[in-house]
Amino acid sequence: MTDKLKSQLQFLAEADKMKTILRQTYITDQSRQESSAEHSWHFALMALTLFEYCGIKGVDIDRVIKMALVHDMVEIYAGDTPAYDTKGNEDKVEREKEAADKLFALLPDKQAEEYRLLWEEFERMETPDALFASAVDRLQSLHNIYLSGAHPWKKYEVTANKIFMRMKPVKTALPELWEYVEFVVSDGTEKGYIRIDE
Amino acid sequence: MTDKLKSQLQFLAEADKMKTILRQTYITDQSRQESSAEHSWHFALMALTLFEYCGIKGVDIDRVIKMALVHDMVEIYAGDTPAYDTKGNEDKVEREKEAADKLFALLPDKQAEEYRLLWEEFERMETPDALFASAVDRLQSLHNIYLSGAHPWKKYEVTANKIFMRMKPVKTALPELWEYVEFVVSDGTEKGYIRIDE
Repeated sequence: MTDKLKSQLQFLAEADKMKTILRQTYITDQSRQESSAEHSWHFALMALTLFEYCGIKGVDIDRVIKMALVHDMVEIYAGDTPAYDTKGNEDKVEREKEAADKLFALLPDKQAEEYRLLWEEFERMETPDALFASAVDRLQSLHNIYLSGAHPWKKYEVTANKIFMRMKPVKTALPELWEYVEFVVSDGTEKGYIRIDE
Repeated sequence: MTDKLKSQLQFLAEADKMKTILRQTYITDQSRQESSAEHSWHFALMALTLFEYCGIKGVDIDRVIKMALVHDMVEIYAGDTPAYDTKGNEDKVEREKEAADKLFALLPDKQAEEYRLLWEEFERMETPDALFASAVDRLQSLHNIYLSGAHPWKKYEVTANKIFMRMKPVKTALPELWEYVEFVVSDGTEKGYIRIDE
């Protein structure tokens, strides 16, 4: 085997650690927290399943799915930073940049650049693909949190306004899904999952 | 929201159960078994990462990734059937067909057909996309089993010949990876993971 192929297998072995990165979200039977590998799969499947509702022109669903596959891989070294964890988000950018340097260096140059650019594009949320991808990423979280007892919303005492702000990308990228976001926030507030804004 | 959209959200909620389907393979830190959702993500990432070594003409990597996303979803109702479990494989086809009828019926007709055809194509292993996809599916298993203490090989007392037979699709779909398969079988035999054929 070439050194190049060996390095790719090494990267794929390292990728396994995505199964040990636990998110604040639970799986729906509430038996344990969702891993980042599971979230990435669910996000990719949701992007594919809901693509017909995409409200942004020029989105390439195949690129979005690739983005979903790699978008959280920096967590292998940087850990998961919950969206509503104010303190953790203070140095998130820096921690994840360092993690990306380490992770993508495992790959041959051209592939390292390809994966890194996909991740950076996703993080910047500017291109049509990245705008659609982040909307789906956030919708997958909302959907799973709502269906699994709302652990992260309770833990971080999240308010309705905070959720609406976080879900804003859904409004333009998946306009028909906004009604679902509103339903979840309304029902979640009634159920005591979400704090009423003061 | 339309009934159509509601049914798609229902399908995506049901999809969460892929995180409760546990394979015989462990994750590499050996803390627990790998879920089918995690395996599907890892398989898709491996297909993307190793695509340059594809030895079959006319493979569409974007379709292969979609296949990876849905290829194991029938397990939500049929459960995982370990490759080396002879008894479980006796009625696997029938159990999975019933599961597919139930699962894909959750989706609107056109999408149900799209996902079902991807799954059936994968299972038949005839088209270029399906041949490449099954080679990667099996390689992901081999790679993870080898790196995580070889639980399924020990449990089913698997022999080197059985592994070579199972890995045969790798020979044509990823010829440069065959050397890796041979290395794993040889090293796995030395380590006592794999039985020597009589």
